[in-house]
Amino acid sequence: MKIALAQYNYVIGDFEKNTSIIIRAITEAKVMNAELVVFAELSLTAYPPGDFLEFDDFILQAEAAMQKIAVECVGIAAIVGAPSRNKTGRGKPLFNSAWFLNDGKVEQIVHKSLLPNYDVFDEYRYFEPSNEFSIIELNKKRIALTICEDIWNIDEVPLYNQFPLDQLAPLQPDIIINIAASPFHYNQDLLRRRVLRETALKYGLPIVYVNHIGAQTELIFDGGSLACDDGGNVRESLPPFTEGLKVVEIDDSWQGTSPADVIHIEEQQRDIALIHNALVLGIRDYFSKTGFSKAILGLSGGIDSAVTMVLAAEALGSENVRGVMLPSEFSSAHSIDDARALAINLGSPYDLISIEEPFKSFGAALEPLFKGMPFGLAEENLQARARAVILMAISNKLGYILLNTSNKSEAAVGYGTLYGDMCGGISVLGDVYKTDVFRLARYINREREIIPLNSITKPPSAELRPGQKDSDSLPEYDVLDKLLFQYIEKRIGPNDLILSGFDPTLVNRVLKMVNNNEWKRYQTPPILRVSPKAFGMGRRMPIVGKYPGF
Amino acid sequence: MKIALAQYNYVIGDFEKNTSIIIRAITEAKVMNAELVVFAELSLTAYPPGDFLEFDDFILQAEAAMQKIAVECVGIAAIVGAPSRNKTGRGKPLFNSAWFLNDGKVEQIVHKSLLPNYDVFDEYRYFEPSNEFSIIELNKKRIALTICEDIWNIDEVPLYNQFPLDQLAPLQPDIIINIAASPFHYNQDLLRRRVLRETALKYGLPIVYVNHIGAQTELIFDGGSLACDDGGNVRESLPPFTEGLKVVEIDDSWQGTSPADVIHIEEQQRDIALIHNALVLGIRDYFSKTGFSKAILGLSGGIDSAVTMVLAAEALGSENVRGVMLPSEFSSAHSIDDARALAINLGSPYDLISIEEPFKSFGAALEPLFKGMPFGLAEENLQARARAVILMAISNKLGYILLNTSNKSEAAVGYGTLYGDMCGGISVLGDVYKTDVFRLARYINREREIIPLNSITKPPSAELRPGQKDSDSLPEYDVLDKLLFQYIEKRIGPNDLILSGFDPTLVNRVLKMVNNNEWKRYQTPPILRVSPKAFGMGRRMPIVGKYPGF
Repeated sequence: MKIALAQYNYVIGDFEKNTSIIIRAITEAKVMNAELVVFAELSLTAYPPGDFLEFDDFILQAEAAMQKIAVECVGIAAIVGAPSRNKTGRGKPLFNSAWFLNDGKVEQIVHKSLLPNYDVFDEYRYFEPSNEFSIIELNKKRIALTICEDIWNIDEVPLYNQFPLDQLAPLQPDIIINIAASPFHYNQDLLRRRVLRETALKYGLPIVYVNHIGAQTELIFDGGSLACDDGGNVRESLPPFTEGLKVVEIDDSWQGTSPADVIHIEEQQRDIALIHNALVLGIRDYFSKTGFSKAILGLSGGIDSAVTMVLAAEALGSENVRGVMLPSEFSSAHSIDDARALAINLGSPYDLISIEEPFKSFGAALEPLFKGMPFGLAEENLQARARAVILMAISNKLGYILLNTSNKSEAAVGYGTLYGDMCGGISVLGDVYKTDVFRLARYINREREIIPLNSITKPPSAELRPGQKDSDSLPEYDVLDKLLFQYIEKRIGPNDLILSGFDPTLVNRVLKMVNNNEWKRYQTPPILRVSPKAFGMGRRMPIVGKYPGF
Repeated sequence: MKIALAQYNYVIGDFEKNTSIIIRAITEAKVMNAELVVFAELSLTAYPPGDFLEFDDFILQAEAAMQKIAVECVGIAAIVGAPSRNKTGRGKPLFNSAWFLNDGKVEQIVHKSLLPNYDVFDEYRYFEPSNEFSIIELNKKRIALTICEDIWNIDEVPLYNQFPLDQLAPLQPDIIINIAASPFHYNQDLLRRRVLRETALKYGLPIVYVNHIGAQTELIFDGGSLACDDGGNVRESLPPFTEGLKVVEIDDSWQGTSPADVIHIEEQQRDIALIHNALVLGIRDYFSKTGFSKAILGLSGGIDSAVTMVLAAEALGSENVRGVMLPSEFSSAHSIDDARALAINLGSPYDLISIEEPFKSFGAALEPLFKGMPFGLAEENLQARARAVILMAISNKLGYILLNTSNKSEAAVGYGTLYGDMCGGISVLGDVYKTDVFRLARYINREREIIPLNSITKPPSAELRPGQKDSDSLPEYDVLDKLLFQYIEKRIGPNDLILSGFDPTLVNRVLKMVNNNEWKRYQTPPILRVSPKAFGMGRRMPIVGKYPGF
């Protein structure tokens, strides 16, 4: 059987565009003699459509688009992901469905059974889980059609009561198809391949897997579409982070194969090249999908803004990324030199605008209230905010989107100024710990020195008061990041952290900082997600509370 | 049977405090000869605890606290809401449970069956729905113990497949108890009373209902705890927005009663006194639970900041609310006069700080880039941001929380400056349409003129350019708010809005504004929720997309 894997980049709610992508791929797959072309989960609406699913008009538009697509399915069948209405008279109003189109019409609709409702997923908000299981048939082949999570109920303590393939296996399928909307994190491709391998082996069937590529604000989809034989050996795959259409021919040689090698995953592996590529795609799609082409950012001479600028230059072209140096009296000479050197290395435009006069004029305005009080945090924040005012003015006036340059370590402990350096349309590094920002910088410099070495080697500083260093206020980043990883990604609580060997004073101090800064993170831009637990929609913490030690 | 209804204000994750509230109430109820004291859903953790539920340490602390409470239950029984572990080996790791404590120990744990996962609710994120139903017994009375949503499966198309009371009714209970965490909106108390009435009548049983009071950041709980007889007649109730403990004696007179009057609800009724009281509680608890006592806000002389200031003064005491007038060259004389008059009427401290010099100094700094370009939106935003810098500096320096004064109409269409007037720790009016802000102002002035009449009667203006009025950029608020209500609260899509009589050009223009400003709303402070559909956690829209007309 010849099946085309269609891995595309959709726009949420853009039915016209998504329909034309899908119809074009159907046409191409037909030319390539495919019998069936498979699109990703909710490909018609893009993923995640959010509360637009609650608008009847949105569902009507999806249904109309699906009819247009069905008409094209003559001489070829297609599987397209889209919501469908729950007509049982009970439960949530929609199913998350795979529409099987053939002979110019909708032939069958298969509904998702297992609905992820954790981390960034809210599927139970919209969809009813299906308890019905049936096979689809095409050219005498029997297909077990599943949707993403349907094959992921593999934990030691299963998260769901249902095992869709256990229901489908007795119906004697020849092949499993899984359509997915499985967002990237640094281990997701390995996890996915492991699940596919285990599923193929358990049921003795080849699998065709099709995922999204492209970023939807914070969620980045890397693709990873593939076909494996019944031993779980990957026989064909589409390149990551790229659109593509590939026809695979599944014949008898895909059955009775030897088991593929076991896939080992080291939790802390964090392949830096993958993270790099994901962030570039995340930036590119945020701009292209909002209709912007140019980015601006504050260039401090430090590593975070340098890495952000390089990633943006890769995504948008260096001529479309503008760096602004905004020195104050506390800025060191090397800061300006390092920042300028970076812009020159990239060939990007840059400006130098001093914040001294605005800073002074605020000081004068506030003098009656602050008289006699010493320089402190308020004055530090004021500098960061004066910078943001200038960056936002340029953004508004000249049509740039401001890039946020905060990293995950800072975001975690609240080491940043709200409405100051925490501004921006999108946060590029907000899911990358400082220690990984260093790894990204070295990766960027792997062939030549793009980021000035001095930006990488000098001690991190916010330069908001004389001689300031990050380490005045924070533990060293290698210590801090290890603790943050356990608390944020692994959700290990204070007692267990101490039991596992972290210093109790440090645990108490850092956890307090993390929890006391929920209010700041609430107001930060969306963060490109590259880890299994990013700040934002995937981590929902109370802003006001007491645990532990708010 | 004598049952004490315990309506209290808990702090999320503050096990020490919540435990002591609960134990004190148990002691008091015992003195009042109650046989049973009933606390709200998840009273031990407060609601909603969010992703802290994913920390094993958090659950351990809850379990330990429950044991301490159980020990106190001698000579009196108690029902306390808390998570409990799912030990079935399948499904989500927790249940949302009602713990029945008696004879100094945990006697029974009843799990919630229907888990709300819409609007502000995420219960499926953490909890497994229960499919087991049993009665608890105390002093020969049989109690059908249910948790909040368990009695709400009453839509024409039921949202859930399960009807807990249909399972419990055959077990011949004498009474229904429902413990709830049911947040306020302007119609919620009526809806709740209607559901309780219908449930009492359907099953022919008296009901004891206990809810939270107190605000948890954006969610405000109004209480509304009550007991009704088997005709649905409310026999006892606790006052709204206030803590309290009340013993009700349910005897034979609660059975065989006449049906209570049907409760009619007018969707657009929006009782302004209720909204007023909810907002005051929302402000008070945000401050008390974050450990702050003083609020600051920018006073423009307009109605939004005036209403916000009065509400804050009621919540915190007028001496703890500081108004700052921040005039520019575009501010009219009446703006300062009206703002000052308000502060004087309230007896609150106020300052006058001109933004002219900071504004000019930014202009000078940006001159090389903006040379020859006309005054525009960037310059308007710049003024709003200069104001925010000053307000945040005072906030940081002197320990105030900045109150956001944007209303829901502005928030909806993006008529506001991000990092400018959209700043703040909490948004007071972000769920109140402009037309309702006027109603609030008149309600505040019901006895005497606290808000200067001129602030209410003059045409709304942002005063960011000469002669500016809101109506230059926006439809008149009475037209705008009607459309917004249909689109936001009722989720009516563009075609149906036009079919229902709205002008197509207006619909297109307004919906574009709403959708194009998701990115701004993403970064705004938490909004005190008083409607069934507030911006924030209850409305999850894509930031980047195309529908309709992003």
